[in-house]
Amino acid sequence: MNKVITISREYGAGGHAIGKRVAQELGVEIYDKDIVRETVKASGYEAELVEREGEDVSKTGSFIKSICAGSAFYPNTQDAIHDVQQAVILQFAQAGPCVILGRCADEILRATDIKALNVFVYADELHRAVRVRELTGVTDPAELQKMLAKKDASRRAYYTHYTGKRWGDCHNYDLSLDSGALGVDLCVKLIVDAARSGE
Amino acid sequence: MNKVITISREYGAGGHAIGKRVAQELGVEIYDKDIVRETVKASGYEAELVEREGEDVSKTGSFIKSICAGSAFYPNTQDAIHDVQQAVILQFAQAGPCVILGRCADEILRATDIKALNVFVYADELHRAVRVRELTGVTDPAELQKMLAKKDASRRAYYTHYTGKRWGDCHNYDLSLDSGALGVDLCVKLIVDAARSGE
Repeated sequence: MNKVITISREYGAGGHAIGKRVAQELGVEIYDKDIVRETVKASGYEAELVEREGEDVSKTGSFIKSICAGSAFYPNTQDAIHDVQQAVILQFAQAGPCVILGRCADEILRATDIKALNVFVYADELHRAVRVRELTGVTDPAELQKMLAKKDASRRAYYTHYTGKRWGDCHNYDLSLDSGALGVDLCVKLIVDAARSGE
Repeated sequence: MNKVITISREYGAGGHAIGKRVAQELGVEIYDKDIVRETVKASGYEAELVEREGEDVSKTGSFIKSICAGSAFYPNTQDAIHDVQQAVILQFAQAGPCVILGRCADEILRATDIKALNVFVYADELHRAVRVRELTGVTDPAELQKMLAKKDASRRAYYTHYTGKRWGDCHNYDLSLDSGALGVDLCVKLIVDAARSGE
């Protein structure tokens, strides 16, 4: 078995916390910021840029201009980062069972023979706002609502741009979980059970 | 606990078979054709009409004209059937834990204080075509594909008409499962585990 678990998640839905516990229970690695670190190493771009451009498209919808404008291969930096990041994700997935957070990993692995369990974690606005408040310290409800909408919009745009599919459409995943309704513990249990089945 | 499990499902995704086994494992009733039977009893409409109009909207998108045109309450028969069916579903749900198949039961129960676990079961076209072939005996691939598309479109239209939401959008459900990727056994296990949690 070489089962990789990809977790796509709405902002504030607890996807990272769930992924971390799933990885612990299965005794495998979880890759999130490591993807940024390795992409930085392999591409030479700055960490801040990779982090910003590796999963989000800015609200304006315009991809940032290339900082290596002379390149014949990459019309913009985001594409260049995406390609390096894709190679990094493949490398992690090929190394053995693991959990990979976001960054179109579901779609990247679909094109390979690596068996993946693709999960989407979402929640209603209230549950997400409470979590984002804890994470960021922001307390103003209107500000929290704006943060959720902005982050979702940019992740949706990134996913659609690089996969041609609709982010959060359950048909892209094997399992979609409402972490607000089910709770984090149950989400972890269901993902672990699904990952272990057929072992 | 009074947990009702609603299962919305794409045609051929095995939602009925999964629901039946979930009900068996939990030792509760499953309501599918019973909803039709009770709606017939309570409304006086013919079984064939209730079955046809109780979950689907014809491809043309036009709801059938009222056969009791003088009624001030129901502009068409489908609305009348929906209302009686809604009362039947509520009655079943109020009686205790059970599994209810389709018919917007998720949305109907959302307006009540009955705790429900809302599940959506889907699968890719190939898995569904194989199942529909077994169920109907139809072997022509093009015909099977047409049947899937037609049934999905009519269920989608019905759901959207009576809930104002998009059928199959994972945000309407607590748990969405790809029965083709996960297999029927695992789907049953995950739903039973989710239903039992917090008991």
